[in-house]
Formats: sequence, C-alpha cells, structure tokens
Amino acid sequence: MPTQPNNSHLPFGDQRTAPWYGKDIISVKQFSREDLEYVFAVAHEMHDMVDHVGTFDLLKGKILANLFYEPSTRTSSSFTASMERLGGSVIPINEVKYSSVAKGESLPDTVRTLECYADVIVIRHPEVGSAAAAAKASRKPVINAGDGIGEHPTQALLDAFTIKEELGHVDGLTVTLLGDLKHGRTVHSLARLLSLYKVKLNYVAPDILRMPAELIEELKSKGVQQEEFTGLDKPLPATDVLYVTRVQKERFTDESVYESVKGAYVIDPKVMKAAKERMIVMHPLPRVGEIAVEFDDDPRAAYFRQMEYGLYVRMALLAMVLGKA
Amino acid sequence: MPTQPNNSHLPFGDQRTAPWYGKDIISVKQFSREDLEYVFAVAHEMHDMVDHVGTFDLLKGKILANLFYEPSTRTSSSFTASMERLGGSVIPINEVKYSSVAKGESLPDTVRTLECYADVIVIRHPEVGSAAAAAKASRKPVINAGDGIGEHPTQALLDAFTIKEELGHVDGLTVTLLGDLKHGRTVHSLARLLSLYKVKLNYVAPDILRMPAELIEELKSKGVQQEEFTGLDKPLPATDVLYVTRVQKERFTDESVYESVKGAYVIDPKVMKAAKERMIVMHPLPRVGEIAVEFDDDPRAAYFRQMEYGLYVRMALLAMVLGKA
Amino acid sequence: MPTQPNNSHLPFGDQRTAPWYGKDIISVKQFSREDLEYVFAVAHEMHDMVDHVGTFDLLKGKILANLFYEPSTRTSSSFTASMERLGGSVIPINEVKYSSVAKGESLPDTVRTLECYADVIVIRHPEVGSAAAAAKASRKPVINAGDGIGEHPTQALLDAFTIKEELGHVDGLTVTLLGDLKHGRTVHSLARLLSLYKVKLNYVAPDILRMPAELIEELKSKGVQQEEFTGLDKPLPATDVLYVTRVQKERFTDESVYESVKGAYVIDPKVMKAAKERMIVMHPLPRVGEIAVEFDDDPRAAYFRQMEYGLYVRMALLAMVLGKA
Repeated sequence: MPTQPNNSHLPFGDQRTAPWYGKDIISVKQFSREDLEYVFAVAHEMHDMVDHVGTFDLLKGKILANLFYEPSTRTSSSFTASMERLGGSVIPINEVKYSSVAKGESLPDTVRTLECYADVIVIRHPEVGSAAAAAKASRKPVINAGDGIGEHPTQALLDAFTIKEELGHVDGLTVTLLGDLKHGRTVHSLARLLSLYKVKLNYVAPDILRMPAELIEELKSKGVQQEEFTGLDKPLPATDVLYVTRVQKERFTDESVYESVKGAYVIDPKVMKAAKERMIVMHPLPRVGEIAVEFDDDPRAAYFRQMEYGLYVRMALLAMVLGKA
Repeated sequence: MPTQPNNSHLPFGDQRTAPWYGKDIISVKQFSREDLEYVFAVAHEMHDMVDHVGTFDLLKGKILANLFYEPSTRTSSSFTASMERLGGSVIPINEVKYSSVAKGESLPDTVRTLECYADVIVIRHPEVGSAAAAAKASRKPVINAGDGIGEHPTQALLDAFTIKEELGHVDGLTVTLLGDLKHGRTVHSLARLLSLYKVKLNYVAPDILRMPAELIEELKSKGVQQEEFTGLDKPLPATDVLYVTRVQKERFTDESVYESVKGAYVIDPKVMKAAKERMIVMHPLPRVGEIAVEFDDDPRAAYFRQMEYGLYVRMALLAMVLGKA
Repeated sequence: MPTQPNNSHLPFGDQRTAPWYGKDIISVKQFSREDLEYVFAVAHEMHDMVDHVGTFDLLKGKILANLFYEPSTRTSSSFTASMERLGGSVIPINEVKYSSVAKGESLPDTVRTLECYADVIVIRHPEVGSAAAAAKASRKPVINAGDGIGEHPTQALLDAFTIKEELGHVDGLTVTLLGDLKHGRTVHSLARLLSLYKVKLNYVAPDILRMPAELIEELKSKGVQQEEFTGLDKPLPATDVLYVTRVQKERFTDESVYESVKGAYVIDPKVMKAAKERMIVMHPLPRVGEIAVEFDDDPRAAYFRQMEYGLYVRMALLAMVLGKA
C-alpha cells in the first residue's frame, strides 16, 4: 500500500523519497483521497508541460514494456504516447496470443523475462487477477491496463481527473452513471474512486444490467448517497456529470435481450435539452450509438477531452512509479 | 488547398509562415507544379542530411500515429523510419482489425482519439475517401498512405521525385507505363502528377487492363501527349522512364484471364537491350515476376533506389506539415 | 569471415578500424575463441553501463529493422530493448505473414527495401538459410535471430556469456545438456561454441531425441570429451552447468510418443539435491514444466538471469556491427 505523498514537493523531486517510486498500480482500492489529489496535481503539471513544450525528457532512457494480451488500440496508444512524450521508449508486445503464451508459457515467466529488458511493465490481460499476479512476479513496477472484468484503474483515474479538470472540483457533484452498470468494470472503479469525495451517485440501467447490490452496499457503508432509476428523465436535470457506457453485445448470452435494451439509453441533442448548461457528458469509448454524433460539437460533450486527460494521467503514473514525480 | 510555397526560404524556417504547416496530404490533386518543386527541394535536403549525419532532431518530441487498417510493411516501415530519422517517435497501430474497429468504432472517433496523443496521423485504409474523412475529423495533420483504389499520394510524389533525382529533370521525358493500368491507383496518381510537366506518356497494357478513358481525357485536356500500345517493343526505344506495375491476381474475377495476361509483360535483360543506355526502370514493389531478378544489377534498375527516395519524400512531408520545413 | 579483434581497444573506438563493423552475424561457426572473448568483453561493458546509467546514446540516430516472420516475443523484445538502451530506434515488423510475403514478395526484395530505411536488420524466419540469404541481399549488417531448425547464434552467444559471467570461466567445466537434443538448434549451437573451450559435455536425452551422431563426430574431431546418458542421476553430481531444454510437442508426429517422454526429465528441488552447491541451471525459455517453479528461488536457478545476459550480448552485437564497439 502506498504511503501518503507529500504534495508540497511537486512535481519532480529526488526519486529516493518519491512516495510512489517502484510501486505497482493494480487497483483503485490502493488510492486514498490524498493519493488522488497527488495524481491529479502531477497530471495537471503534465498537461501544462505538454501544452508548453509538447515533449520533455523526464523519462529519457527509461523503457516501457507494453504487454497487451488482448487488443486495445486506445489504451495501448495512450500508454505509448505517454512514455514517448516523457522521452522514454516502448517495447510494443501486441500479438501475444501468437507467441510464448501459445507455446504454453506462464504469465510470471513472461513478466520475469520482460523485467530484464524494461523499467516498467504495463499489462492488459483478459483474466481477473492477472495484473496482480504479474506484479507479484516482477521486481519492476507493473501498471494494470485492464484485467478482464476485474479492474482498469488508469481509466478510473482519468475519469476522475476529467471531472476535476472540467468542473474544478468533485465534492458536491451529482454523477449519473448510465448503461450497463452490471458488467462495466469502468463504472465500478469510478464509483469506488468517487466514494472518496462527497458526491451523489445516480444509477440508470435496464433491470438486468443494474449496479451490483454488493457494490451499492459497499458504497453505502462509506456514506455515499445513491439512487437507482430505470430512465434518465428524472435524474438528468440535476446531473453534473453524465457517464455513459456501452451496452456490450458480448456480455449477453441471449441476443434478443441485447437487441431489446441496446437502444434504450441514447444521448442526443434533444435528450440533452433537459440537462444543465454547465455539466459534462463522459464516455470511456468506443461508443456504438449510445451518444449521437450530432452531440459531439456541444461544449458539454467531454468524451474526447477525456481521452486527452488520459494521456496526462498516464504520464503522471509512469513518472510516479519510476521515481520522477 | 495549399497556398503557394516560397522556395527562397528553404528548408527550415519558422513554422508560423511555413506554407504546409498543419495541412493534410490526401490527394495528388492538391499539388501545383510549384508545390512539387518545393517537396522535391525539401526531400533533396533530407537526402543530403541523411547522407551526412544519418539522423537529426528536426522533429524531436513529435509523435506520429501510424494507423494501418490493412498491412503494408513497406509503407508502414517507410513512415516509421522517416519519423525516426527526424528524431520523432511513432505509435504503431497495425492490428486495427482486431481492435476498436471490431468493436464497431467509427473512423472519426478513432482519429479524434489519436489526435489527443499524436502530432500527425498517417492512415492506410481499404476504403476510398477514408483519408479525407479522417482529415475532416482531425485537428492534427493527416497523411493518406493509401485509401483502397483511391489515392496513395506519397507513392506518386516519391515516384516523381525518383525521376527528378535520377534523370535531373522531368520536362521533355517520355514515360512509359506498363502493366495493369486499369486498376492501378499508383499509375493514375503518377500520370496526374506528371501532367504538371511537359512529358509524353505511353501506356502499354493488355486490352482488359487499359488506362481508363476518363483519365486519358482528363490528361488530354491538360495538353499531355499520350499514346496507347499493347506491346512494349514499339515505345521502349524512346522511353526515358519505364514504370512497371504488377498485375494483381486479386483484381481478376476470372483466374484464367489472369493466367493469360500475367506473363505478358516481363522485363528482363534481353528485353532491355532495346532500351536506351540512360533511362530508368521503376516499380512500386512488391514485384512478382514482372521484372526478372537478373536485371537487378543493371544501373538502369532504379526500383530499389526508388524505395530510398520514398524515405526522403516522407521525411519532407512530415517536416512540412509539422511546420519544420 | 571476421578478422581477429584487437581487445586492447575496448570498448568504443573508431568505427573504421572496428573489426566487426558492417559484418553479418549468421552462424556460431563465424566465431573463434578470440571473437567470443571480444563479444564477452563488450557485453560485460554493456552490463556495467546499464547498471550505472540505464541507457546511453552510443547508437543514437541508428535504426534497427526488427523483421520477424514468426512470432517470438522474447527475442523480439530483447533486440528492441537492446537498441533502445543504446539510444537507437526500432522499426518493428511483426505481422509479416499478412504483408508483402502474402503478396508473394521474395525475402531479398524485402531486405533490399528495409536496408533503405534501417542501419541494421535483425531477422527471424522459419526457413533454414533465410538469414544467410538476407545477408547476401543486404548492404547493411544482418543478424540472424533464428532461421528455423538452422541457427540462433545470439542465443548460443548469450548462453556462453551466461556461463562465463556466472561461473567466472568456461575452461574445465562439465556441461550437461538435457532434453530434446535431436531437434534443438539451441543445444547444437551452444555445443559448437563450447567446443572452443576445454569442456566436458554430457548429453541426457530419451533414445529418440539423442544428440545427432554427425554433431558428436564433429565435436569429437575437435577434441571435446563427450558422454551420453539416458538419465540425469549419473552425470548430475559432477555437473557445473545443467542446460535444460523443452521437449516441443510440435516436433513429434506421434502424440503418444510425446506424452511418453515429456515428463521424463523434470528438474525440481528434490532432484537438485544431488547437484553441486556451486553450479547453475539454464534454460532458453519458455519452459512448460521441465523446471518446477519451486526451484526458481534457488540461487542456482540462472534462467532468468540468462535472459538479462541476452540483453547485454545483443547490445554488444548491435554496437559491434554498427562500428561502435
């Protein structure tokens, strides 16, 4: 577990005393509110520096092994860009299915090999717990870029950072989560992170895709105000952050059930007339019709800016675990 | 549409006044003769600098997203090398078919994500118009690396640059295009570019693969002298540039038709006895028997040098759209 | 064939006089004992420099084309990291099967294209002799990263370097090779390299996977002391280096034969009680049960350190052929 960071030394001190130096980033559960503030502060610095100089050599000479057991152009590209904008290099490993794994190699052996070559390992793997297993095997820091239906902590961190940067604060906000709330690791992790703040959470989902009762219970015990809806019309007017998620076909065993719900929660300019003028719409992307492209030019459409915030958060995390933040 | 460049400021001035800064490169139709001369001048500088120092940091800190929806080792490697020889970094995105596209994401969404990470986007996509669509969605410059049977403008530019560098000039040359002139976007784009000069164009193709009548008409209206042949023996002796193209099996619905024509236009040392001593043979590669390997050591065999010229042209284009040329 | 290097000028002299400048590395047969000592000395320097500064700019501006016709995460990543730790760049070419080769392009043409973009080419290809063919076509140095059942010289070099670094010397050692000694190019190449030293070689294999008689004859003619066994119990107590190899399922036409031998030679803590206290266990990895994970924490388990030595050897080779060692 990480120690409490000392925010007064931001951003680029001696790596010996850097609180996240050598740490793994596996779960949002690792993060206290103070930790979050620290990540946000470093990410904000990264944003400033990218705006001013584009790229800088903070991680020059450092190598990232970008180990993707399943494809994710977005996340893979984001980590690659993060490392390159900090002057570091990347070993791209994208076709793992054809490779050692096919020959039967275990994940720990792969990780113990890569740690010989790289300074930090980013891993995406379809199995829950894989990132933790990789971290256990590795002497070098491991960052979880998604382990199946488990966690995707950097997505949750960038989501929270987006809210902070777009609206200036998190306390006091009403955040409405929409779509597949049952299977979505993204919304689960974000809800957990937001529970560190004073927020009201609304859940809008069809009955078969409701937020898991255990998670509602967990957040309730932390004092988070929560409310469930089956339609967006009631919660929308008071919403500060509308977080839309995709209803993924592959989650359904019965295709007819998928067809009956997939179009139920589509955001478009007409729907958004009922929303505040100062609020944001987020989406982890890719979208497949959940948000109409006609809404893209609305200033409240924050989902592409969200991608950019992801760059700064991942730059921050890489710098942190390599002792340079 | 690009403004007229000011050749007197070559090669590396202030990006604010750089004429191609922020521009997309989608079609050869964007290029005036003055534009071509500008590209050639910058590419020539690139050649000199690679010869003298190998690599230099003109684009240090810049990031290229190399987005290939269909594989093309040659083009992909050429852009990667171009960026790396200028000190920049690359996000390689090669397995798109497995990735977001498979999840149903639209090209504009992918581009709007990548522009958050990269400074310039190179795209290859099997559909005509895809590069233009990507350019429309992107705030960052987009370079078309081939959009199906549409255009492949950097190939045409490197072809023209090869002629210029190898023979010293373009005006007054006789250029003979050989092979599949019906489907080949390469020869169509090159013919359009060459129409900016005073050239004679010969077309040698089997009847079912003749140059499209519309294109012949288009070039005729520009005053280009053109002549069609079904065999190489007549035009070869006067030819300064023989541009050979592959007869692609996949273009034929009837395999027997393919078999009947594929061997009809093979270049070998014997055939080339009828050609001038000072002329060049070009090919966009890969070849599959259209040019015998026995001809490779002939000084007129320019097809591998052509690959190298491609490096300089792509370096020039990257520097230009990033405001560094 | 390489000339004799001058060890007194180690490590980073003028490239004009560098003995390996511009050379290809295709086979272990290229290496004399003096050559080996030279590689080891440069690799040792690389190790020191990585320990002290992580990365350095010896090959800044140089570009490696990493051409893999069959996947090998381990070897590909190792070369990528080697180039990046020396400040160079990499063109990753991993999906060749989908690319030009599918269109029917010949290996020499691919190589002649890549030499236009890169300063050095690493090639892995399923066919014996492919690396030599690539080297013949290329003006730039080519390094063989495995050509089917042919050679994998950098693996053999790193194996020998591991022995040298771990045990301090090679002369006088007893090296026991275990597993599939019939098909394993790794053990064949290592045995040839070790024949340059005064070693005793033990071969432990099931009858159908014995060391080829021709190779035994070849080594015998060089004065190497060799002995064959069907079980490990006899040779183990005197063994200084136990080199374990995987019995690859794909080598067998009859699956029942594979099943009958695959578990016959498993290394675990119990078996290793009979071994010396100061010896090492090596494995080219990946392993699939040949060495129990329970043995991983034993100080004699050198197989992950072996991966790391691979980095230094490949850094050394890249620097050598690029005239920087």
